[in-house]
Amino acid sequence: MTLTYPNFGFDITHSDPSSKARIGQLKTPHGTIETPNYIFCGTKASIKNVAPAQMHEARTDIILANTYHLMLQPGADLVEKMGGLHKFMQWDGPLLTDSGGFQVFSMGHGSPTDEIKGRAQGHVNKTLLKITEEGALFRSYIDGQKILLTPESSMEIQRKLGADLLMQFDECTSYNHDKEYTAKSMEMSMRWGDRCLSEFERHDNGAQGLYGIVQGGVHEDLRRTSAEYTADRDFFGTALGGCLGGTDEEMRVIVESSVPYIHPDRPVHFLGIGRIKDIFTFVRLGIDTFDCVIPTRLARHGVAFLKGHPGETINLKNARFKEDPEPLDPENGIAASADFSKAYIHHLLKARELLGLQLLAHHNVATINRLMREVRGAIKDGTLDVLEKEWLPE
Amino acid sequence: MTLTYPNFGFDITHSDPSSKARIGQLKTPHGTIETPNYIFCGTKASIKNVAPAQMHEARTDIILANTYHLMLQPGADLVEKMGGLHKFMQWDGPLLTDSGGFQVFSMGHGSPTDEIKGRAQGHVNKTLLKITEEGALFRSYIDGQKILLTPESSMEIQRKLGADLLMQFDECTSYNHDKEYTAKSMEMSMRWGDRCLSEFERHDNGAQGLYGIVQGGVHEDLRRTSAEYTADRDFFGTALGGCLGGTDEEMRVIVESSVPYIHPDRPVHFLGIGRIKDIFTFVRLGIDTFDCVIPTRLARHGVAFLKGHPGETINLKNARFKEDPEPLDPENGIAASADFSKAYIHHLLKARELLGLQLLAHHNVATINRLMREVRGAIKDGTLDVLEKEWLPE
Repeated sequence: MTLTYPNFGFDITHSDPSSKARIGQLKTPHGTIETPNYIFCGTKASIKNVAPAQMHEARTDIILANTYHLMLQPGADLVEKMGGLHKFMQWDGPLLTDSGGFQVFSMGHGSPTDEIKGRAQGHVNKTLLKITEEGALFRSYIDGQKILLTPESSMEIQRKLGADLLMQFDECTSYNHDKEYTAKSMEMSMRWGDRCLSEFERHDNGAQGLYGIVQGGVHEDLRRTSAEYTADRDFFGTALGGCLGGTDEEMRVIVESSVPYIHPDRPVHFLGIGRIKDIFTFVRLGIDTFDCVIPTRLARHGVAFLKGHPGETINLKNARFKEDPEPLDPENGIAASADFSKAYIHHLLKARELLGLQLLAHHNVATINRLMREVRGAIKDGTLDVLEKEWLPE
Repeated sequence: MTLTYPNFGFDITHSDPSSKARIGQLKTPHGTIETPNYIFCGTKASIKNVAPAQMHEARTDIILANTYHLMLQPGADLVEKMGGLHKFMQWDGPLLTDSGGFQVFSMGHGSPTDEIKGRAQGHVNKTLLKITEEGALFRSYIDGQKILLTPESSMEIQRKLGADLLMQFDECTSYNHDKEYTAKSMEMSMRWGDRCLSEFERHDNGAQGLYGIVQGGVHEDLRRTSAEYTADRDFFGTALGGCLGGTDEEMRVIVESSVPYIHPDRPVHFLGIGRIKDIFTFVRLGIDTFDCVIPTRLARHGVAFLKGHPGETINLKNARFKEDPEPLDPENGIAASADFSKAYIHHLLKARELLGLQLLAHHNVATINRLMREVRGAIKDGTLDVLEKEWLPE
């Protein structure tokens, strides 16, 4: 079989001579974005409390939605009937969906990476019933119904949702799995990848591009095998998934040792990773796109990303902001960052006013988009080290 | 004493020959608005989940904030230190504050009108400790502290908050009070009105305009006395407050019998009233401005105002909207009303996504602003009856 993705493209227009960092033009039917870039999580077909117009105002290029949540509510058939996800959620730019697998498995395993990858939803370890060669059987958190998610059904659901970029169905292993389990799981994910490609090709009309996912846990040899597998198949892009270790250094080592075996001409997405320091670490290793829930999740906890703050963030609930007349960051170019004082946002959070969460989510999205613009500029200028110190002073 | 309000004005530019409806130009230091108009409630210095830019996009002319809530959190001194309410909440248009009295008393009495006037907050009848000639002693719902609110302190707090339009401190009686109590209360409110005027004048710098409030419950003779009192004093505007009856008809009769005694050249505000049918009823009786929490409160319950819907509203949580591909109302001119399907908003509400509440609040504000624009046009054209049938078909 041959998949050519005629409506998609990835052109690397600049490579950093001193690292693997690169600038790319990622073309989709809903527009071309420049990479490195950040894909914001619109889990249930909505960026939490940020409207599409506000996402554009914050200069967002691309967002994602989660297959797992949408298949359960409102269901892929309904989204398809309403004209697909772009129309349903009124997002006219590039859009990605994951396979549904991550949530199925993260709710079944429990792992240190769950915390940043979507756990803490109150029903951990309760919903995954069985993993077989066929797929994963789990229970809907909406109505308790048993659902078998397979490579084929994940492709069907993602086809109905209609995003530009799709993910293969894979098993997402955790830090708690031993090497033997991780290896067998990875091999199954490779077979699932082939089934995804077959199912994808059967319905391919040029509207969607499929990513293969590199698994293999923290084991370099497995990561290599998995990376070589994805490079050998007709995926449009490559994603790094699963557990990459318990520490930043472990994660860095695993990515560094995986990237050489990833197809060099395809866009590389890092699933579920997206703190400011991660961006600087991993663009240097050749990652093109990131996604993470933290810009909007932190907002719901009163936390704002800030350029030039050693810990990346400040918590606006803190009493020290009670009388702070300064805005979060006028340079972000949106009212949420430039017009309102920290004292006002502190007040809104204390008074449990939803506007506080809206302003912080908007600010965090704008901050991360600005980070990515500045990172792209710095890669072109060869000044990534300088920029990193500006964003993350010691 | 003489208060001239040099930076304020109210010009009646058109009077309906077949009713008391009128078009006015209400001038404040933060802009001139055309009346009849609707004043949206930004209770704690925030329209619930609607940012100032979104309020402007929905063509909002004027908003209010509640002295009671703000004096408790974050406190008038802090707001003053931050440059006043306009700057604090980033609202650059006309702004009104109430006296704080309504919430103090509505939490102390309990009445049939509480439901539409701000009750159901879980601490009814618990916080009002004592009413004396001096003022009202109540307990803060934030920290339990005892606070004495007087005409003088209400004026001081409202001066610090810095809105354009202020309300005198009055006792707000309920349907449960007999005529004797209501009469004595009204007389005290008149004495409080004089104290407010004195205190206001002591600090008057031309930045604020003070409204007197007509009390007197459902008793026409008391309403007349109170209306004549306000007309006889140097208030900039007149507000109708307190209980106006248990039925729409009772309310209409009381307003109709009060208005002839209100100063004819001053703007008349109707406190806490603002369903669509109320607008049509009371602009015909000479009311110039309305305020009510329902546009944003209903949004938080999944309810949208709709032009041309017999019951004024629809509840988007209703299963009949699950597959409804139509937007709420493209004529409103904002994305929340024109771009998103009812099916999508239904999904957001079911999935407890905050964006659903944001879109509905934005839609409701835009709908009410459109209503007021169309009402003003119809008064000028003499077609108010036709317009009412368009908005509220039988």
